[in-house]
Amino acid sequence: SSLAGKIDEWIENEGLTLYEGLLRFVSLTPLVITGHWRLSQGLDIVDPTEKYGHSGNVLHSMGFEVDFVDLRDLDAGLILHMDDPDNPSLTQLLSSLENGEKPGEAIRKAIQTHVGPLHHGAGTNAMRMILELRNVENLSDNLRNRIRNGERIFGLGHRIYRTIDPRAVLLKKILQRRTEETEHKWLPQVIEEVARGATETILDLKDRKVFPNVDLYNAAVYSTMGFPIEFNTYLFAISRVSGWMAHTLEWYRMNPKT
Amino acid sequence: SSLAGKIDEWIENEGLTLYEGLLRFVSLTPLVITGHWRLSQGLDIVDPTEKYGHSGNVLHSMGFEVDFVDLRDLDAGLILHMDDPDNPSLTQLLSSLENGEKPGEAIRKAIQTHVGPLHHGAGTNAMRMILELRNVENLSDNLRNRIRNGERIFGLGHRIYRTIDPRAVLLKKILQRRTEETEHKWLPQVIEEVARGATETILDLKDRKVFPNVDLYNAAVYSTMGFPIEFNTYLFAISRVSGWMAHTLEWYRMNPKT
Repeated sequence: SSLAGKIDEWIENEGLTLYEGLLRFVSLTPLVITGHWRLSQGLDIVDPTEKYGHSGNVLHSMGFEVDFVDLRDLDAGLILHMDDPDNPSLTQLLSSLENGEKPGEAIRKAIQTHVGPLHHGAGTNAMRMILELRNVENLSDNLRNRIRNGERIFGLGHRIYRTIDPRAVLLKKILQRRTEETEHKWLPQVIEEVARGATETILDLKDRKVFPNVDLYNAAVYSTMGFPIEFNTYLFAISRVSGWMAHTLEWYRMNPKT
Repeated sequence: SSLAGKIDEWIENEGLTLYEGLLRFVSLTPLVITGHWRLSQGLDIVDPTEKYGHSGNVLHSMGFEVDFVDLRDLDAGLILHMDDPDNPSLTQLLSSLENGEKPGEAIRKAIQTHVGPLHHGAGTNAMRMILELRNVENLSDNLRNRIRNGERIFGLGHRIYRTIDPRAVLLKKILQRRTEETEHKWLPQVIEEVARGATETILDLKDRKVFPNVDLYNAAVYSTMGFPIEFNTYLFAISRVSGWMAHTLEWYRMNPKT
């Protein structure tokens, strides 16, 4: 979020266009995030390389070996999370722009909304829940008790999609392909059991139809690439900044007098 | 072009949606093209692999070793050639749809227009010209004579762009990066000499301002990946089919009663 503040400086002091400033921000975001993470682990920072593009350098700067399948799947994951028809961080972004704040400032506030625990920790929470539920004896009883006790089941329901989240459909396929005949085979299986059990129980107890959303799968997919589960929110941010960039450019085009 | 004819059959007989039929066509196009080429060279067909996505499989099915840089650059090249604000094959596509022809038939005709020598052989022709001009003694005299004799200089001018083609800017950068410190270093240098010499001469002799277009660079970029120069039109088609698909879907959305 301190990086976002720099966007305005780049534009004002270095003469970058809005597009160039935003693009630089999108490129640097993963490097700041992965750099922080590696330092926190006592590891050296890995510099980006011309060999890879954006997604490849996300993997590379984490210190991972980049392979073609990870590259393609991370690309798909990042694209799927770029935008959302209605989300709190976008609302924040647009209202900051409406209030006359500069793009860097608006994006800084969008990020703060994004990493707030209420809004975008859902993927990490869903994955934690899946790991917990993996070993319970009676999954449907356990889910029933959780729902009765008012506990939130992560990865289900969406404010816009009244049927299955189309992004979830794609991520589910990716997860299945990635885990087939591997030690992670249990992962899509448990997720499906949770999805089925929870949707049935919620329909039964609350008479409400919910469907799996993108958060039920994203942290699971990313974990199979080697990302820590807690990293999900940051991968989400790495992706979402491109969406914010597009919205910011669009906003300025629609409000040319600003 | 016989593959395109199948789109209508898939939709009618296999119950595919328009989108699914078109997507299958986009996926199969490179395989048919590279398969034909390999057979014509006395080589076996290389099956696609799940390991790669679309661009990766274009390289792989040619029998090339796929590396990360080629993959990224081919992706960029294919995206840059997907569409064009005004091109003969698109005009053909849309007028076929207007005349009530089925999507497969409309795309079949668009391909025929596309591979016609007048329209889309420009990249191959530009590259042939560059290879010829590489060794001439006095480039600017040679260009002057060509232009005086009414010979066409390929890769310059565009019906829409009245300044440099933005796609050419990107392909030029890609070509420079790919050839730096390699045996292909002469390639961007000769291209720049041709571009400068030809634009000056055309301005001088015809009082007309022309700028480099995408065709001045595409065959050169692809040749550094190992594609034969003659293959340029087909790479163009592999890319353009996605654009046609988008236009076809849009056309049906705008004409819902069809």
